Amino acid sequence: MERVAVIDMGSNSFRLVVFQYEPGSWWSLADEIREATRVSAGMGDEGVLRPEPMDRALRTAAVFSSFLRASGVERVDPVATSAIRDAANRDELLASIRERTGLAVRVISGAEEAWYGYLAIVNSLAFEDGFGIDVGGGSVQLMRIAGRRLEDAESVRLGSVRVSEAFLPGEETSGKQLKALRKHVSRTLAELKWWEAADGRRLAGIGGTIRNLATAAQKTLDLPDVDVQGFLLERDLLEDLIERIASKPVSKRASIKGVKPDRADVILGGAVVVAAAMDHGGFDALEVTEAGLREGIFFERLLEGRDPPLLEDVRRESVTNLAHRFRTDDLHVEHVARLSLQMFDALREAGLHRFDDVERELLWAACMLHDIGMTIDYDDHHHHSHYLIQSAGLPGFDPRELELIALVARWHRKGDPDASTLRDLERKGDSDRLQLLCGVIRLAEQLERSRDRSVASVRLEDGEKRVTLRAVTGGDAGSDPSVAIWSAQGNADVLGAAIGKAVKVVGPAE
Amino acid sequence: MERVAVIDMGSNSFRLVVFQYEPGSWWSLADEIREATRVSAGMGDEGVLRPEPMDRALRTAAVFSSFLRASGVERVDPVATSAIRDAANRDELLASIRERTGLAVRVISGAEEAWYGYLAIVNSLAFEDGFGIDVGGGSVQLMRIAGRRLEDAESVRLGSVRVSEAFLPGEETSGKQLKALRKHVSRTLAELKWWEAADGRRLAGIGGTIRNLATAAQKTLDLPDVDVQGFLLERDLLEDLIERIASKPVSKRASIKGVKPDRADVILGGAVVVAAAMDHGGFDALEVTEAGLREGIFFERLLEGRDPPLLEDVRRESVTNLAHRFRTDDLHVEHVARLSLQMFDALREAGLHRFDDVERELLWAACMLHDIGMTIDYDDHHHHSHYLIQSAGLPGFDPRELELIALVARWHRKGDPDASTLRDLERKGDSDRLQLLCGVIRLAEQLERSRDRSVASVRLEDGEKRVTLRAVTGGDAGSDPSVAIWSAQGNADVLGAAIGKAVKVVGPAE
Repeated sequence: MERVAVIDMGSNSFRLVVFQYEPGSWWSLADEIREATRVSAGMGDEGVLRPEPMDRALRTAAVFSSFLRASGVERVDPVATSAIRDAANRDELLASIRERTGLAVRVISGAEEAWYGYLAIVNSLAFEDGFGIDVGGGSVQLMRIAGRRLEDAESVRLGSVRVSEAFLPGEETSGKQLKALRKHVSRTLAELKWWEAADGRRLAGIGGTIRNLATAAQKTLDLPDVDVQGFLLERDLLEDLIERIASKPVSKRASIKGVKPDRADVILGGAVVVAAAMDHGGFDALEVTEAGLREGIFFERLLEGRDPPLLEDVRRESVTNLAHRFRTDDLHVEHVARLSLQMFDALREAGLHRFDDVERELLWAACMLHDIGMTIDYDDHHHHSHYLIQSAGLPGFDPRELELIALVARWHRKGDPDASTLRDLERKGDSDRLQLLCGVIRLAEQLERSRDRSVASVRLEDGEKRVTLRAVTGGDAGSDPSVAIWSAQGNADVLGAAIGKAVKVVGPAE
Repeated sequence: MERVAVIDMGSNSFRLVVFQYEPGSWWSLADEIREATRVSAGMGDEGVLRPEPMDRALRTAAVFSSFLRASGVERVDPVATSAIRDAANRDELLASIRERTGLAVRVISGAEEAWYGYLAIVNSLAFEDGFGIDVGGGSVQLMRIAGRRLEDAESVRLGSVRVSEAFLPGEETSGKQLKALRKHVSRTLAELKWWEAADGRRLAGIGGTIRNLATAAQKTLDLPDVDVQGFLLERDLLEDLIERIASKPVSKRASIKGVKPDRADVILGGAVVVAAAMDHGGFDALEVTEAGLREGIFFERLLEGRDPPLLEDVRRESVTNLAHRFRTDDLHVEHVARLSLQMFDALREAGLHRFDDVERELLWAACMLHDIGMTIDYDDHHHHSHYLIQSAGLPGFDPRELELIALVARWHRKGDPDASTLRDLERKGDSDRLQLLCGVIRLAEQLERSRDRSVASVRLEDGEKRVTLRAVTGGDAGSDPSVAIWSAQGNADVLGAAIGKAVKVVGPAE
C-alpha cells in the first residue's frame, strides 16, 4: 500500500490530506488535518499578506510538516492558490516556510487550479459535456468540458473570502450590498463568451463553499443519511438559502445546519457568486461533487501515464474500488452479478419487466457490493452492506442511485423490499424497480449459495401461470447444484411478486 | 486463517455454522445455514423418529455436506442432541446420513450437551459463579458453575418441542394446560437439590428459545440498536411475554416481534419451562447470551490445550478480538489507552472525578476500538466505530456497557457527548460518566495525533482555577510533540466541562 499527501494552502484554510492506495486495486482517504488559517485576511486591494495571518500560516505549515515526518509519509505535494499567488510579499512567506519546515511549496497558476478542478470533476462524476465552477477563498475557476476534455478555463478573483471582505463587511448584510456583489460578478464574467448553458448543459460545482451550501440545502429535505456527492442543488433552493443566510447577522450564520463555523462569515459571499454565475450562464442547477483541488492533484499522480489522467469509467471504478477496499470474494460476487444480469435480460426479453440499462447498471453495482458487510459481521451482513455503501459513497452515482444500490444490497437476503426509506429521493416506479432488482439478486445469491459457481447459468422458461428458472451446471463432473437449488427454491417469492407470476427453480435434469 | 464447521442436529432445527479464526489473534462467525427440520415431530412417548422428519433430516444433511465440500471447509464436527439421542431408531438415520453424505455424526450425551453449554456461558459472559439453563427442542440442560468451573449438571427432557407436543397441543392454549406444564416442570426438577439461587446467584440462559424470548422482550423497550447479548430478562417481563403469547392462537404468534415463524408453535412451551425453572430455583432474572452449543464446541477447539478450555478474561478478549478483526494500528490504540488511563487515574487522585474501575475498563475498551471505523472510511470514522462496536458486539459486556463503549468511541473526536441515545438503558450519572470518558479519550487521541508516541506521558498539575496537562516526551532526540500540543490545545473543552475547570495543555518546556 502506498501513501501520498497533498497540502492545499488556500485563502480560507490550509488542509493536509493523506491518500492511500494499492496500485491497480483501490484508493481511499487516509487522514486529514485542517486549520482555518485565513491567510488572506486583511489583504485588501494592496495585495499584501499581513503579519498575523503569515504567522498563522507558518505555524500551520510547521505542524503539517511535523505530522508528515512523524507518520512517515514521504511523498507530499504542497500547493498554494490564489491568496498566496496574488500576494506581493509571497516570496517572504514561502522562504520562511521552506526554511522552517523544508516544504517546497508550489504556487499554482489560475489555469493549473482550473485544471485540477477539472480532473476532480471528470473523475468523480459521470460527466461527458458541460461546465464546472470551483469556488475558493481567493479565486473562482470556471471551466468548459467537452468529451471529458477541458476546452476552456478561466480563473477570476471572485473567491468567497475576497468578495466578502470587499462587498459584505459588517455584521448585517443589506439588499443593496448583495445587489452590488451580483453586479460585480456579472461584470467580471461579461468577457467570458463561452460561459453559457447552451442546450441545457450540465454544471458541476466543487470547493468547500459549495459543499457547505449543498449540505445546508440537503438538511431542508427529508433524505436518507447520504453525503452531498452527486447532489443536484437547484437554483431556487440556492436562492432560498441565500435569503435565509442573509437574514441572519454573521455571528448567527453557523446556526444554519451544514454551515461550518469558520466559514460562516464568507459563505454568503460565496453563495451569491455561485448564484450570479449561474444566472449569468443560464444554469438551473448545480451538481455537487465532494472531490476538489486536492483530489485533482491526487488523480494526476494515481493515473500517471494517462493523458489526460482520467478514470475510464467513473461509476464502474467507484464500485470496484469499494469492493476491493472491503476485500470481497471476487469470483463469488462476479458470478452473482453474471447470474443476475442473465435473469434481468431474460425477464426483459420475455416482457416480464420494463426496466432498462439504468436499472441493469444499478443491479450490477449492488451485486458487486452485496457482501461487503461481511467485513463487519456475518450476522446481518445485508444491513451492514447497506450501511457501508451509504457511508463510503459511490462517486459517479447521485444520492438516489446510491441509496437504490444500497437498498438492493440490503435486500439481497431476508425481508421484504421497501422503497419508503428513499424518502424525498423516491421517484415514481421505485417501489416496483426495487422489488424486481431485489427479486433477481436474491435468487442469484442463493443459486451461488455454496460460492463454487456450481450453477453456471440459468435458463428461463415462461409459462402461462408460472416462470421456471432452470439451473444449468458447468459440465464439470464434480459440480453439485443441490445446495443452490435447495436455497433458491425458498427464495423465489420476491421475484414472483415483482413479475406477478409464480417462479419455480428447478435443477438441470428435472 | 483457518475455518472449522459445526453441525448441530437439534430437535427443532439443524444448523451449520462455519467459524473462521487467526490463531492467537481473532475469531468470528463466517457462515451459517439453518433449516427448521423438526426431526422430533410426532416422536411422542414411543421415541421413534417418523419417516417424514427422517427424510427431511437426511436431505438437510446432504445439503450441508455439499455446502462444505463446495466451500472447501474440511474440518467439521457434526453432533446430534436430544431428539436423535433418545430415538429408538436413531442408528438407522445415522447410517443413512453416513452413507449418503459421509458425515460421521457424533451423538452427544446430556452431560456433554451441558458441558458445551457451560463452555458457551463462561466464554461469552463475565461469569464466575452462578447457574445456567440451556433450552433446546428436546432437552433442557441445567448447570451450576463455581469459580468458572462446572460443578453440577443435569439434562432433563423438557425441551420446547417435546413439552409443546405433550402439553400444549392445538391452536389455542388454556390456563389449565399452562398450569399442568408448570407442575410437570416442578416435579421434574424436584430431585435437583442444587438448583437454588442461594445468595442471589446469577442465572445465564442460552439456546434459540431464550434468544427469541429476549428479542421479543427487548422490542417492548426503547433501546439503541443492540443485540440480546448480555441482556437481563427479568422474571416479570418474561411473565408478561407468556401472557401475550398465550393470548394468541398458535398461527398468530409469529406476529409478535422477535418470535421466529418456525418457532412460533413451540416458543410458549419453552417460555413456560424457563419461567417454571426460574421459580423453582428462586431466580429473579436471566442473563442472555447468544453463544450456545455450537460456540461451546468451537471454543473447545479454539482453546485446545487449556483445561478447561476457557478464555482468560472474556471482556478483555472480546475487545482485542474486535480490534484485531478490523486490523487497527496496535501501537497507536494502545498508546491512546495508556495516555487515557494515566489521565483518568491522575484526575481521580486529584479528586476531580468520582468514577472507578468500572469506568476505567470502559474507557480502556473504547480506546482500543476508537479507530476501527477507519476500515469504513476516514470521513466520519468516529461514527463508523460506533456502528461497528454496536453491530459486532462485545460478549462479556451488557447492552448498556456496550453502548457506552460505542458512545465514547463515537465522541473521541468532534461533537458534544450526549447520553440520551442510551434511551431506556440510561442510568443515573451516565451523562457525567460519558462527558468525563469522552473528555479524556479526546485529549489522549490528540496527544497521539501524529501516531508516533512523541508524547510519552502526561503530568497533571491541579491549580486553583485550572488544570494543566504537561506533555512529557520520551527523551528520544527525534521526538517532536508539536503536532500533539497543537492538536490537544483545541480539544480540551470536553474534559474541562467534565471536571468543571479549564484544562490547559502545555509542552514539556513551557
